[in-house]
Amino acid sequence: MQRVAIYPGSFDPLTLGHLDVIERASKLFDRIIVAVGRNSAKSPLLTVESRMKSIEEAIESLGNVEVDSFGGLLIEFVAKKGATIIIRGLRATADFEYEFQMATVNRRLSAELETVFLMTKWEHSYLSSTIVKEVARLGGDYAEMVPPASAKKIAEALNRK
Amino acid sequence: MQRVAIYPGSFDPLTLGHLDVIERASKLFDRIIVAVGRNSAKSPLLTVESRMKSIEEAIESLGNVEVDSFGGLLIEFVAKKGATIIIRGLRATADFEYEFQMATVNRRLSAELETVFLMTKWEHSYLSSTIVKEVARLGGDYAEMVPPASAKKIAEALNRK
Amino acid sequence: MQRVAIYPGSFDPLTLGHLDVIERASKLFDRIIVAVGRNSAKSPLLTVESRMKSIEEAIESLGNVEVDSFGGLLIEFVAKKGATIIIRGLRATADFEYEFQMATVNRRLSAELETVFLMTKWEHSYLSSTIVKEVARLGGDYAEMVPPASAKKIAEALNRK
Amino acid sequence: MQRVAIYPGSFDPLTLGHLDVIERASKLFDRIIVAVGRNSAKSPLLTVESRMKSIEEAIESLGNVEVDSFGGLLIEFVAKKGATIIIRGLRATADFEYEFQMATVNRRLSAELETVFLMTKWEHSYLSSTIVKEVARLGGDYAEMVPPASAKKIAEALNRK
Amino acid sequence: MQRVAIYPGSFDPLTLGHLDVIERASKLFDRIIVAVGRNSAKSPLLTVESRMKSIEEAIESLGNVEVDSFGGLLIEFVAKKGATIIIRGLRATADFEYEFQMATVNRRLSAELETVFLMTKWEHSYLSSTIVKEVARLGGDYAEMVPPASAKKIAEALNRK
Amino acid sequence: MQRVAIYPGSFDPLTLGHLDVIERASKLFDRIIVAVGRNSAKSPLLTVESRMKSIEEAIESLGNVEVDSFGGLLIEFVAKKGATIIIRGLRATADFEYEFQMATVNRRLSAELETVFLMTKWEHSYLSSTIVKEVARLGGDYAEMVPPASAKKIAEALNRK
Repeated sequence: MQRVAIYPGSFDPLTLGHLDVIERASKLFDRIIVAVGRNSAKSPLLTVESRMKSIEEAIESLGNVEVDSFGGLLIEFVAKKGATIIIRGLRATADFEYEFQMATVNRRLSAELETVFLMTKWEHSYLSSTIVKEVARLGGDYAEMVPPASAKKIAEALNRK
Repeated sequence: MQRVAIYPGSFDPLTLGHLDVIERASKLFDRIIVAVGRNSAKSPLLTVESRMKSIEEAIESLGNVEVDSFGGLLIEFVAKKGATIIIRGLRATADFEYEFQMATVNRRLSAELETVFLMTKWEHSYLSSTIVKEVARLGGDYAEMVPPASAKKIAEALNRK
Repeated sequence: MQRVAIYPGSFDPLTLGHLDVIERASKLFDRIIVAVGRNSAKSPLLTVESRMKSIEEAIESLGNVEVDSFGGLLIEFVAKKGATIIIRGLRATADFEYEFQMATVNRRLSAELETVFLMTKWEHSYLSSTIVKEVARLGGDYAEMVPPASAKKIAEALNRK
Repeated sequence: MQRVAIYPGSFDPLTLGHLDVIERASKLFDRIIVAVGRNSAKSPLLTVESRMKSIEEAIESLGNVEVDSFGGLLIEFVAKKGATIIIRGLRATADFEYEFQMATVNRRLSAELETVFLMTKWEHSYLSSTIVKEVARLGGDYAEMVPPASAKKIAEALNRK
Repeated sequence: MQRVAIYPGSFDPLTLGHLDVIERASKLFDRIIVAVGRNSAKSPLLTVESRMKSIEEAIESLGNVEVDSFGGLLIEFVAKKGATIIIRGLRATADFEYEFQMATVNRRLSAELETVFLMTKWEHSYLSSTIVKEVARLGGDYAEMVPPASAKKIAEALNRK
Repeated sequence: MQRVAIYPGSFDPLTLGHLDVIERASKLFDRIIVAVGRNSAKSPLLTVESRMKSIEEAIESLGNVEVDSFGGLLIEFVAKKGATIIIRGLRATADFEYEFQMATVNRRLSAELETVFLMTKWEHSYLSSTIVKEVARLGGDYAEMVPPASAKKIAEALNRK
């Protein structure tokens, strides 16, 4: 039986922390779908297409990872894809309770669904899309916080404004 | 001396977690007033009237509980009602510090006021109005998360949009 | 119906934080029993009798509060006393999860039991019996951390050693 | 490639929370080894053999789960078994930081090792071996907190004392 | 070598908690610059000028403290001022992780920068600008939560609306 | 005026996290005294002398840092040394509340005393003396977790047993 896992998020932008989670998940399960939430970022810096492009570029060397996007209820997307596993990265205590609630809600809505948590690599755990955006908007150097493909898209988006 | 307790909140919508707190509070104090905050929900799904109606229906069998609404400072509403006790439900660590701050502020503003905390029943502790609204808006099944009276009002509100 | 509440603890020694909780509980319920756990302190400074004496002295002016001690399961003591309420003081986030677990266990063991949490007064919230003992054993001044009756018993216990 | 995962712990005793984690892990990976730490319980109630027996009984119906025990460094046991995955159950915020530290230490000691976290089922998340032992030692009813095989071993151990 | 420290914030309004941090920082380092962030408050009650005026009045008796404002990246302001130290007040666990992240980001962006944390005085630790604004907007008494200079500016701002 | 700071701890053993805090503190204040608590480690691996020796070796290149040891109340040692500042490293949320309590107690016992918190460098924040000892006792590789001087002392202590 093939085990398919969904890694959902806003990825606005993809950080090195996200990429680390993707690489580790790709060793744990047979097929990984990185799923960009179309409604999940509040004031997005990047378009959904832009985010998908930079993820595609970043995962090029990983044979069992692909990118997709979803609106609506996550568990419906998961079902449509024939997946049974949701991947989440935990960075800090503050994430913990919200993730616990969501994992419980998702299990109530779909009994055979399992949420699996990976801890973000220690050296990336201070990183979040929000912090990258804040640094980028104020003109700081974000190059070490994101993969090159993300950096390019961020630069484009900031120039356009 | 009759002990009157206020249970304030936005109740947008009333969840099974709220109802559990109300039922338990009704055994602890002589009279309970569930107080719907008119300004407390940021992007309300239900009108204040709708929320009050569904609470009324849900508490019908509890003889010493009634519903009211308030604007402005909570402690002024408490004083007007002759109450000396505020009831708060604690669900998770994340609630804790905010509640601690508010309890301290309220005590500074009114010395004879006591805030009493009840822990939400374990099986409801993942529930919040925000999560119910998110599930409902995305078309998920929220029937097991709220009392029937709430479910009806949510369905009406979603149809109207 | 008279509402009886138990406030259990090791009280080794009683601090101003504990006393604050007792005073506030005495206004909320009809009868309060402060219950010294005979097995609850790991390396006790004071004997159970010593602790009970200093609590008695400290609550003298509160008409509806009394002192007792218990071994074994708390819920059995609660049942024997005809009480339905357990009082717990919350000082800090770190207390929260343990208290939540214990409240759930107690409810499972006895369905009609309610645990009520009061937040320790802000200015006493740094206080714990452990910190008082540490300061006392190292020769520091603990007089502002405990009621006079506790201070006397601590001094006696330290002299004896 | 077969994916082998180790679920280490003291299991003194095995609780329903542990069993839930085992059942869910058995669907995620090809082979699960429940590994009883020979040095991990501070004042054990059950012998290592007793714990292994009750786990064996509880997992009987799960085809890809087996039981073993280990002393010394966890990562050495993991390597010896040809495993690359460590399973941990998260119950509450308090677990989080310790688990995060251990996951980081284990990764430093062995780069290809991955720690995967599953959240304990909500209704079991108040449960811990420590609480079960406390309830059992004080004569409370622990039957709903553990699988039947554990309950039997606990009863035997308590009678012997 | 003179040690210059920056204490950045929105100070909308300055609370007694902030003032306590400033007074304590003034004893630790040679020169303190209180830096009002021009973009940091989301829905500001006071203008940046108003906030700077009330800080100036409150620190009048402290010889080595001055006020300034900044937009853009904090570390650039710090560099321009020849400072090497950032001061932050910690009030509660909830602040902790965000502050930890920001301190790490700032160190990555500028290696010689040090963030120093002072704990807010216990009796002020329930205070935040947000709570003061909420109390003020609802007509509550905020006089004991802020220095007189802040109170005056808050009253002016509320009248204007 | 010379500013003298005390950095107290058990340092059993000194980790790279401790050393990082010492190096950073040495840039903030004029004179730093690393103070080994004679009673602070529960089941010490290293003698107080051994710990002091390895700290001395590790700080050799820092001109304004020295080592000492203390028993009894920290604030008395601080006063004897003419210091007014206590340095503490914060690693994680779990440290936070205990440190907050101790800082408050110390301020109550000695009003002019200031506790200054530095956040441990991100890549060392998973490190604690307890974890180093656990890894060392189980035969794991602790060489990257401590300065060379500590590693030597740990090896000696383990051989002796």
